[in-house]
Amino acid sequence: MNVHNKVRVGFVGLGIMGRSMAGHILNAGYPLNVYNRSRAKADELVARGAVWCGTPGDVAAASDIVITMVGFPHDVEEIYFGDKGIVARATPGAILIDMTTSSPMLAQRIEAEAAKKGCGALDAPVSGGEMGASDAKLAIMVGGEQAAFDAALPILQKMGTNIVLQGGPGAGQHTKMCNQIVIASTIMGVCEGLAYGRRVGLDLDTVLQSIGGGAASGFQLNVLGARIIKGDFAPGFFIEHFIKDLGIALAEAARMQLDLPALALAEKLYQRLAEQGYGRNGTQALFKYYEK
Amino acid sequence: MNVHNKVRVGFVGLGIMGRSMAGHILNAGYPLNVYNRSRAKADELVARGAVWCGTPGDVAAASDIVITMVGFPHDVEEIYFGDKGIVARATPGAILIDMTTSSPMLAQRIEAEAAKKGCGALDAPVSGGEMGASDAKLAIMVGGEQAAFDAALPILQKMGTNIVLQGGPGAGQHTKMCNQIVIASTIMGVCEGLAYGRRVGLDLDTVLQSIGGGAASGFQLNVLGARIIKGDFAPGFFIEHFIKDLGIALAEAARMQLDLPALALAEKLYQRLAEQGYGRNGTQALFKYYEK
Repeated sequence: MNVHNKVRVGFVGLGIMGRSMAGHILNAGYPLNVYNRSRAKADELVARGAVWCGTPGDVAAASDIVITMVGFPHDVEEIYFGDKGIVARATPGAILIDMTTSSPMLAQRIEAEAAKKGCGALDAPVSGGEMGASDAKLAIMVGGEQAAFDAALPILQKMGTNIVLQGGPGAGQHTKMCNQIVIASTIMGVCEGLAYGRRVGLDLDTVLQSIGGGAASGFQLNVLGARIIKGDFAPGFFIEHFIKDLGIALAEAARMQLDLPALALAEKLYQRLAEQGYGRNGTQALFKYYEK
Repeated sequence: MNVHNKVRVGFVGLGIMGRSMAGHILNAGYPLNVYNRSRAKADELVARGAVWCGTPGDVAAASDIVITMVGFPHDVEEIYFGDKGIVARATPGAILIDMTTSSPMLAQRIEAEAAKKGCGALDAPVSGGEMGASDAKLAIMVGGEQAAFDAALPILQKMGTNIVLQGGPGAGQHTKMCNQIVIASTIMGVCEGLAYGRRVGLDLDTVLQSIGGGAASGFQLNVLGARIIKGDFAPGFFIEHFIKDLGIALAEAARMQLDLPALALAEKLYQRLAEQGYGRNGTQALFKYYEK
């Protein structure tokens, strides 16, 4: 029926991102095994032909390529190394791909444990958000061995357009950390610049006409800044997930004795917003810190 | 000989930016009076037909539109209000345009004093750097009265493409502060992200392939970040001038009791670099702070 019918794909973690990503793989004709903590989120994929599995381990036992997209590093740890986890049940030759933004050291541990089972592993976090996931235009930053990357590439290409092998195990996560570190301070700058403009009585739409095309321009100012001006704080990316990412980056930096004061400041401000109940707002809601 | 021969333009401050800007006005056929602290910088313009004047006041006495583009607020203060300054000698009906990035409160004072002499005044700082000046593609952020803006617009259009009246006197300077505030934290983020990537052993060109097209993208990452990766710290914009701008923004924010912690951090890091002798490097040399 299709050319892919020998490569069985498993997908664990069917949140907003994961559901879209898994859907593209199903659309491409791959047999798809799925698991999610709450089963209801799998219903639509199962109705379209995906096979429900009772545990992450069951997904692994039935799949040649296992993709995971969950929330926090402790979730990753559980689905890979827990009682009913992936590593214990993975079949020799399988490739395990964690696309969660997670700890680089955990990625290295997964790769090492997978190797003992004769499996390959890649860390492959993404950027591009819900829209990137639904349009199959994610940027995918990959760490791992070249052979595993080559084998996984046709599947990754169903979900993203900018797919780059950054180095060995953990390099994908480290690259994602670079991305989040740049963003953390950039959004602080956007919020501070717009807070200044509003306080001094400027019309912020008019300000954006002047500053949106020059040295301050970029996604954070031109897209998220425009939302701030409209008072739109709906999540493209949740503050609570961003705090997770910044925590991972700070821990890695501390381990390397690299002082990143602006990152530390951003994490502190976002923590305060989370304490005030803004964790499920988009990252641009940092603007509220300056409006108090 | 040309349609502009009744509008006499004066230009005070012929540094790298000012020379290019004045040259465009001369090329457009306007009679041009010039002054600069060191006369040699006027030689080329004088050879092309500009008239040298011995003081800023002499420029003002001979011009219908007086443009100033100098270094620091104290320079602005001196050329406008000093013994041989512009305000004392300006002719009724003239328009005085300060394009220096300077204090919003000083801009308001110039406007008030100019009004007493029957003159209009605009604050009109620019963005776009040397290249924007030489290509006549500056963004010009203007504060002042609509009538003065309308009268000055044909001249401003010889130097820039994105020319926006942001509000009353000082609004141009305030808008430029918004721009600099956004940039201050953005370049910290770019430097911290790249410092992290280098420390962890990633190839930064490859990192930029992954992160340069998404939510971290922008002028600071894609243009200045690329220079950092090449080890190019030559000035597009001097650190010592940036410190001046950040100081003005912090003073204004303090006056409004607006706490901008990321801006304050950026100013502190740049001060340290200046103390270490990097003041004449480009702003991307902030990367050196993280390489110590």
